[in-house]
Amino acid sequence: MTTRLEKKPSDSHVVMTELVLPNDTNTYGNLMGGRLMYWMDIAAALAAMKHCAAPVVTASVDNISFESPIKLGNAVHIEARVTRSFNSSMEVHMNVWGEDPTQQYRYKSNEAYYTFVALDPNGKPRPVPSLIPETEDEKRLFDGALRRRQIRLILGGKMKPEEAEELKALFNPQTP
Amino acid sequence: MTTRLEKKPSDSHVVMTELVLPNDTNTYGNLMGGRLMYWMDIAAALAAMKHCAAPVVTASVDNISFESPIKLGNAVHIEARVTRSFNSSMEVHMNVWGEDPTQQYRYKSNEAYYTFVALDPNGKPRPVPSLIPETEDEKRLFDGALRRRQIRLILGGKMKPEEAEELKALFNPQTP
Amino acid sequence: MTTRLEKKPSDSHVVMTELVLPNDTNTYGNLMGGRLMYWMDIAAALAAMKHCAAPVVTASVDNISFESPIKLGNAVHIEARVTRSFNSSMEVHMNVWGEDPTQQYRYKSNEAYYTFVALDPNGKPRPVPSLIPETEDEKRLFDGALRRRQIRLILGGKMKPEEAEELKALFNPQTP
Amino acid sequence: MTTRLEKKPSDSHVVMTELVLPNDTNTYGNLMGGRLMYWMDIAAALAAMKHCAAPVVTASVDNISFESPIKLGNAVHIEARVTRSFNSSMEVHMNVWGEDPTQQYRYKSNEAYYTFVALDPNGKPRPVPSLIPETEDEKRLFDGALRRRQIRLILGGKMKPEEAEELKALFNPQTP
Amino acid sequence: MTTRLEKKPSDSHVVMTELVLPNDTNTYGNLMGGRLMYWMDIAAALAAMKHCAAPVVTASVDNISFESPIKLGNAVHIEARVTRSFNSSMEVHMNVWGEDPTQQYRYKSNEAYYTFVALDPNGKPRPVPSLIPETEDEKRLFDGALRRRQIRLILGGKMKPEEAEELKALFNPQTP
Amino acid sequence: MTTRLEKKPSDSHVVMTELVLPNDTNTYGNLMGGRLMYWMDIAAALAAMKHCAAPVVTASVDNISFESPIKLGNAVHIEARVTRSFNSSMEVHMNVWGEDPTQQYRYKSNEAYYTFVALDPNGKPRPVPSLIPETEDEKRLFDGALRRRQIRLILGGKMKPEEAEELKALFNPQTP
Repeated sequence: MTTRLEKKPSDSHVVMTELVLPNDTNTYGNLMGGRLMYWMDIAAALAAMKHCAAPVVTASVDNISFESPIKLGNAVHIEARVTRSFNSSMEVHMNVWGEDPTQQYRYKSNEAYYTFVALDPNGKPRPVPSLIPETEDEKRLFDGALRRRQIRLILGGKMKPEEAEELKALFNPQTP
Repeated sequence: MTTRLEKKPSDSHVVMTELVLPNDTNTYGNLMGGRLMYWMDIAAALAAMKHCAAPVVTASVDNISFESPIKLGNAVHIEARVTRSFNSSMEVHMNVWGEDPTQQYRYKSNEAYYTFVALDPNGKPRPVPSLIPETEDEKRLFDGALRRRQIRLILGGKMKPEEAEELKALFNPQTP
Repeated sequence: MTTRLEKKPSDSHVVMTELVLPNDTNTYGNLMGGRLMYWMDIAAALAAMKHCAAPVVTASVDNISFESPIKLGNAVHIEARVTRSFNSSMEVHMNVWGEDPTQQYRYKSNEAYYTFVALDPNGKPRPVPSLIPETEDEKRLFDGALRRRQIRLILGGKMKPEEAEELKALFNPQTP
Repeated sequence: MTTRLEKKPSDSHVVMTELVLPNDTNTYGNLMGGRLMYWMDIAAALAAMKHCAAPVVTASVDNISFESPIKLGNAVHIEARVTRSFNSSMEVHMNVWGEDPTQQYRYKSNEAYYTFVALDPNGKPRPVPSLIPETEDEKRLFDGALRRRQIRLILGGKMKPEEAEELKALFNPQTP
Repeated sequence: MTTRLEKKPSDSHVVMTELVLPNDTNTYGNLMGGRLMYWMDIAAALAAMKHCAAPVVTASVDNISFESPIKLGNAVHIEARVTRSFNSSMEVHMNVWGEDPTQQYRYKSNEAYYTFVALDPNGKPRPVPSLIPETEDEKRLFDGALRRRQIRLILGGKMKPEEAEELKALFNPQTP
Repeated sequence: MTTRLEKKPSDSHVVMTELVLPNDTNTYGNLMGGRLMYWMDIAAALAAMKHCAAPVVTASVDNISFESPIKLGNAVHIEARVTRSFNSSMEVHMNVWGEDPTQQYRYKSNEAYYTFVALDPNGKPRPVPSLIPETEDEKRLFDGALRRRQIRLILGGKMKPEEAEELKALFNPQTP
């Protein structure tokens, strides 16, 4: 099977819906953060696999802030798509909402980026198709991916802060 | 909170995606039918709750035929929406596909109808909004709902075959 | 190993008991229909395997009506046995009860038919032993299996209503 | 509701069947002992509740020896019934078998005794009905219950070995 | 890989912490005994594997008395270590506590002994390293292991009471 | 109950051990990242609750890089402790290792920071005790907590990069 060398973000679009059951909640009846990150990992991994047509492993997870708590008996909606691919890795963006179906009310829970690496049959990294953004929103996510990658490398101890050109500009916007 | 008296099928649209894990499979590495019916029940219940803005219970499940087996490591996609509402019950239609993300291959698993009853705070049936179909496909599902309801009533022992006018015509198409 | 060519319904008798835990229930503290269908699938598959001495897959599920809800903390009892075998498939009948052990109260939940196909080591359908009913009840279930099979074929789109001789008679009982 | 003051062992008879799934097994594909003890606890608790018509808690578990391992894909059958009741506690005996349905082969896994205490609505121990054994087997289990109770009390540090008259005789059978 | 022929109890020390979730509890909101025995089996198996550097299976479980119930939302702490090894088997001792983190309160739940057998690649028992106790507490557990082993053999029907020299002395302390 | 106004990192020390079972792994037999983040959330929440003696919710998760994959059948060890507290929130640091008990081999998986908010009985944030670091390592983690907090606030859109004095210095180390 041949895999196309270029993919669009919509090719990797995944929509997941889960129902919050008792075992997913803490003593306040709110969805536990760890359970949500578990579902997000599966949704994002499926999006990455749709992009690269290969098995993937989670390489890193960016900062996540949990906003409104999601309640017992509510639904969780996760929308995932690849924002940019590098040599053998892909960044996946997710939007997460809670929904109280009996109140007809939908609320933002969080937004997140997970990064995956594609593996060949020996479990070694393999090249992945390029991603060509189409909409304005997709282009904005594509452009921001470089900056987020520098943050990941610095926070993971694999790049020195002074080498991160994009971030340096961010912290010294007045510098000519 | 007031609930609109009429709803469209798209108002209750739910998309669920699950990953087939080892514990979901039989000794051939295929998704067990019971595990799939469990996920379908949750997807359909969420669709019904979106229609009626109230808690629901599963009242009945129509005949389901499982076509292509869904494999370990594949994704399951369930699309659910309400097809017609009766006094306090709603019929939900689902399309179910398997998807092998590494082979970029998507296949039909089955199609099904679940029926739910809306409950008031005392756990008694309560009225639900009407459903107004819009597309050709939605109208076809809406029209067929009466016939499927007669089958359910007959199979559940609550209607005699000779009282089912719609079905009688079906079995004697040549009758004037 | 040789398998007997004929089996009795009692050879495939399976009794399963489960306890309804919090994660099995909806917001009213009632067992979710999907969770019950999952347990029924396992009980019925075990009955089918006892009949044919081979792995099986779920082929179809007949209409199920859920009567009394089963409560959190109650027991679920499922009794399954094969009612009739066809070339490579078997129909399994189940009776399902709930039981509140602290109230010494047992109540009917539903009755259902699941159909399974026996598989050979290559995952292809293989012949199964005949079933010889013994009791009056087993004979009644055996006789009804043909009619239920026609309904499955019609509802699955594999038979035209006017070809279903048994059902035609049912809908036109007065026809000579 | 009145509860009878005397019960028979058959009144508390429970039959449970489970299928061994991948997550229940160790790296050799055998059912983990802890998973089996979990199922046995539920089967035995249901038997105890049927005897006393009240909620129960596990008080103790006697020595269990695991004989033949139960394999992935096999069924587990647990048969439980109360053997004797004391003031507010009940001893439950279980027989556990594995079954390979494709090989038509059933094998003994282990035999065990769990003890439960009945609770009143405040969570305090409450009296339970007496047990009247009927068959020879039930009488043998009833008689042995006293000796097992002494072992439990000694092993739990609540009785001194020299006070256990039944056991002393066991260790000095020749003593006049 | 060579395995040392002698190990210390501290080499096999395992600390496990779990949170009691809704599905782990009975109707009183207390951790079910069977769920706790499941966790204990995993903690003890990990300790045994650390001692023998090989896969293990649960051979037997000694009498367990459950003292204070562990509540929903509390933590469970299990500390396991090998107390003595025999030819191909190892006895593991565990201390189990509950902890209410919001009340800063820690309480003893139970103490237990599980026995494991080490397996070679064919699933047959294989020799395990000796255990050399170091602290007073470890020596006490090491010495008691022989007596507990006789109890296991007698209760498992593999030794006659009158052959158990250690236990005979226990039941007749005054005998010269 | 009164809660001490100052706590040491060792007061909140939690050690968790889990066994990687089939359902926790992807198609390569490696622990899924989402499952690990779930366990980490529970370990970190228990550490935070030990610090503040109150229920907590996950507020945010810092960047996590997954290094060596953890294999099926291996153990996961998570060590968590609070590094610094703010008004009503606490940062928890975790070290995560995998361990192959049959190979006597232990390897680093990742290191992470989760942040939790303490809640009063109405579900509103409440003050938490101060943390007084003691060892060199604890002081280093305590000092870094301010910088990590600025990163969280910037990445969560709650602080402008140019306001983050600590980070500005990091990106322009040569500035006087």
